[in-house]
Amino acid sequence: MAGGEKKKTNAGGGGGGKKKEVKKETGLGLSYKKDENFGEWYSEVVVNGEMIEYYDISGCYILRPWTMAIWEIMQTFFDAEIKKMKIKNCYFPLFVSPAVLQKEKDHIEGFAPEVAWVTKSGESELEVPIAIRPTSETVMYPYYSKWIRGHRDLPLRLNQWCNVVRWEFSNPTPFIRSREFLWQEGHTAFATKEEADEEVLEILELYRRIYEEFLAIPVVKGKKSELEKFAGGLYTTSVEAFIPNTGRGVQGATSHCLGQNFAKMFEINFENEKGEKAMVWQNSWAYSTRTIGVMVMVHGDDKGLVLPPKVASVQVIVVPVPYKDADTQGILDACTATVNTLNEAGIRAEADFRDNYSPGWKYSHWEMKGVPLRIEIGPKDLANGQVRAVRRDNAAKQDIPRANLVEQVKELLESIQQSLFDAAKEKRDACIEIVRTWDEFVEALGKRKLILAPWCDEEEVEKDVKSKTKGEMGAAKTLCSPFDQPELPEGTLCFASGKPAKKWTYWGRSY
Amino acid sequence: MAGGEKKKTNAGGGGGGKKKEVKKETGLGLSYKKDENFGEWYSEVVVNGEMIEYYDISGCYILRPWTMAIWEIMQTFFDAEIKKMKIKNCYFPLFVSPAVLQKEKDHIEGFAPEVAWVTKSGESELEVPIAIRPTSETVMYPYYSKWIRGHRDLPLRLNQWCNVVRWEFSNPTPFIRSREFLWQEGHTAFATKEEADEEVLEILELYRRIYEEFLAIPVVKGKKSELEKFAGGLYTTSVEAFIPNTGRGVQGATSHCLGQNFAKMFEINFENEKGEKAMVWQNSWAYSTRTIGVMVMVHGDDKGLVLPPKVASVQVIVVPVPYKDADTQGILDACTATVNTLNEAGIRAEADFRDNYSPGWKYSHWEMKGVPLRIEIGPKDLANGQVRAVRRDNAAKQDIPRANLVEQVKELLESIQQSLFDAAKEKRDACIEIVRTWDEFVEALGKRKLILAPWCDEEEVEKDVKSKTKGEMGAAKTLCSPFDQPELPEGTLCFASGKPAKKWTYWGRSY
Repeated sequence: MAGGEKKKTNAGGGGGGKKKEVKKETGLGLSYKKDENFGEWYSEVVVNGEMIEYYDISGCYILRPWTMAIWEIMQTFFDAEIKKMKIKNCYFPLFVSPAVLQKEKDHIEGFAPEVAWVTKSGESELEVPIAIRPTSETVMYPYYSKWIRGHRDLPLRLNQWCNVVRWEFSNPTPFIRSREFLWQEGHTAFATKEEADEEVLEILELYRRIYEEFLAIPVVKGKKSELEKFAGGLYTTSVEAFIPNTGRGVQGATSHCLGQNFAKMFEINFENEKGEKAMVWQNSWAYSTRTIGVMVMVHGDDKGLVLPPKVASVQVIVVPVPYKDADTQGILDACTATVNTLNEAGIRAEADFRDNYSPGWKYSHWEMKGVPLRIEIGPKDLANGQVRAVRRDNAAKQDIPRANLVEQVKELLESIQQSLFDAAKEKRDACIEIVRTWDEFVEALGKRKLILAPWCDEEEVEKDVKSKTKGEMGAAKTLCSPFDQPELPEGTLCFASGKPAKKWTYWGRSY
Repeated sequence: MAGGEKKKTNAGGGGGGKKKEVKKETGLGLSYKKDENFGEWYSEVVVNGEMIEYYDISGCYILRPWTMAIWEIMQTFFDAEIKKMKIKNCYFPLFVSPAVLQKEKDHIEGFAPEVAWVTKSGESELEVPIAIRPTSETVMYPYYSKWIRGHRDLPLRLNQWCNVVRWEFSNPTPFIRSREFLWQEGHTAFATKEEADEEVLEILELYRRIYEEFLAIPVVKGKKSELEKFAGGLYTTSVEAFIPNTGRGVQGATSHCLGQNFAKMFEINFENEKGEKAMVWQNSWAYSTRTIGVMVMVHGDDKGLVLPPKVASVQVIVVPVPYKDADTQGILDACTATVNTLNEAGIRAEADFRDNYSPGWKYSHWEMKGVPLRIEIGPKDLANGQVRAVRRDNAAKQDIPRANLVEQVKELLESIQQSLFDAAKEKRDACIEIVRTWDEFVEALGKRKLILAPWCDEEEVEKDVKSKTKGEMGAAKTLCSPFDQPELPEGTLCFASGKPAKKWTYWGRSY
């Protein structure tokens, strides 16, 4: 498991005024290597890259501005897309009363062990303990029942951006598994199953785009097994990412069709066009700050974070490289002009003019923070009317005539975005192993592979695989059955049960 | 006190499919009048206008899309303004450990009775109870101490958009006083008091703009008394609004200079430019969803909400008015064309094409929801190439040639925005009463005035006034000492103590 809980007492890092203790304080360089000690590397890189600060309550983390800027860029995209779909934002309370929370039995069984309870205010005991939302199905649906009367009230499509709390005790990891996290949760109700089914996939496609187009991370779209689906729902679709270093899958985001289970419990009925009483079909869907942790894990390297240009709050950092006898003012002016030109073209660029750090220190600092492109301007560049551009992803250097600045920087940023995706996909694909027998499965699991296997789709068989693979590393389970199914010739048998296989399914350990 | 806590069991309202029980279900018409029973009117108008739904936990409210759209418009403005000031967004945890919460003594005394405590997760008791943030000074400042070392780390300027919880037991009122609310909280640290002082006023000016330019509500900028300032801070500035119907002031938003009190407790020190150890100067500032409640109280009328155009998610509602033998399709097409033309010009317009409601029903419905401008298109309008525009604020009607549509609608919306502000200011100003003696003060208080009085600025005197005016309606207190001070001739005496007056101060009852 990556990122064991550690209190970093000395890992603020990166700001000015700490020159004396550079190595220790500013995170110039990491103590751990990604390939050698992934967990420690991850904890260190999120702190030294100034994304996270560890907090004095275990499992809670401070999201620093470097993180929030990424979250806001994804939020701006997703919020605009769902508004186009006529989904509206709302805000329901943080608190749930126990009676309502417990209304849907399967659902509460799934969440009960993780629910945090408020029992006191000031010095007074509350009459009834109040739960903090782990998710908002039971918070919202009593009101859906009230608001929905006739077919004209449908569809009802709401979303909220909020915090939720799941008081888990195992292995907290920044972004990936935390006791409080930020997310959006969409909750929709339709007259027909067809409309609900359609929306499930439309939302899933937006989640794919967040991962693939924004975070440059390849994901598999698919359906969760009965064992792994959302507690109380009908079926769950997800985008699944994979972390090659740990050989673990990670559920990237989920889009659930809840069917009519919640509608039954919360009596969400309506009069249909024929004047008959009918029950709504519901969906819920969410993505969280976990997305950012997956990004760090997939792209980061031994120099620090590597941010895809589309989500980087600073896409280009401009560093002046003055020499003793050079025209320092001319260099500084060229840096300012470069930033201005890039900003005017809509590129997020900044200059680092701090005079108490050397250019070399600044290179390392901004590499740690993962800025996609560095531009250096020294006396020779000034003389030649050019700048030097250095890519974060592959360290490639290139001289750019200032006359072509915007055009070439744009190309470079696009190229970095694409290269990051391609490299991540190549690494992910190299981990995929197709297995057909139990022995092959065990061997592949030992090699930390993303396993694609023919499966009979029986819940008991998945339980059996889980119990047989239990161990220090955690059990194997299904990740998803990909929508994009390879051919399954008749007579193919399940790798685990030997019964006829019904589908190809991804298996592995997961976060 | 407005808006006594009521569970409305039958107040969803407004959607379609409920025609049979129009009066009761859709909020067409209010049972209470603003001037006769303000508290009940307020509760009814926020529910029937579909801003709020009452929740099954007292003091918590559901913010419906009609509310969230207003909140998002203000958020977009404010967030962009503080980003220009180089203030960055972050997110700190919801939870605080008791040791940290209690570090600043005055501060915790101010908040302790309202703090909600988590003591259980699942079935397990927590080892130490954990508090839910009532505000985040004590959550954040231990990390400010860690991050700030030298003068180059300053200023440190962070903001977060989040929920906070204050478990108050008295008089919950939607928006105005709720146990959970949404806000932004800014927390900044500077090397010098001058910089901190300057920011306090810059932020206060943004709050003034939110009230006056967006919500069309006049506010007074001023300084809070020692008794009313932020617990643990140095001084508090605020924008103060006034609700003529109840004669109560309402603290609109606050911008605090915390001085060095928190810096001392949390050891937020830095090495200054001379290499000496120094302590930072801090500010914190916030505005909340309370803003929206003030807007409802000030502008709403007996037909429902009245939304200022700048914050209305629908600025113009277009209603087709077909007649039996008229060219219905032509009318519908003209409505669509009107909406498209307005949308293209950046005006938020929608058409109400529902075929199960009459035009008259729709007029009432959108009046209840407070849409600033209604456009009706009937056969005569179609024939004359015009539309009929009806203002929500004063019911004035006007025919607009379709050729001049955009221009005239823009003018109308601006005029409505200005008229709302002017009318609110006129009403507010009519409530201001200047008093110089205790008898005048008591009389003015009885008449629910916003009282401006010369004051000696002594804490004991304010306490004395409070205890003398205690009663069913609540005690009078200082609202603020306005920055814009009338002349105070030498020899002017305090209305309450008879001592020499130091300043003019607003007094009254408040929310």
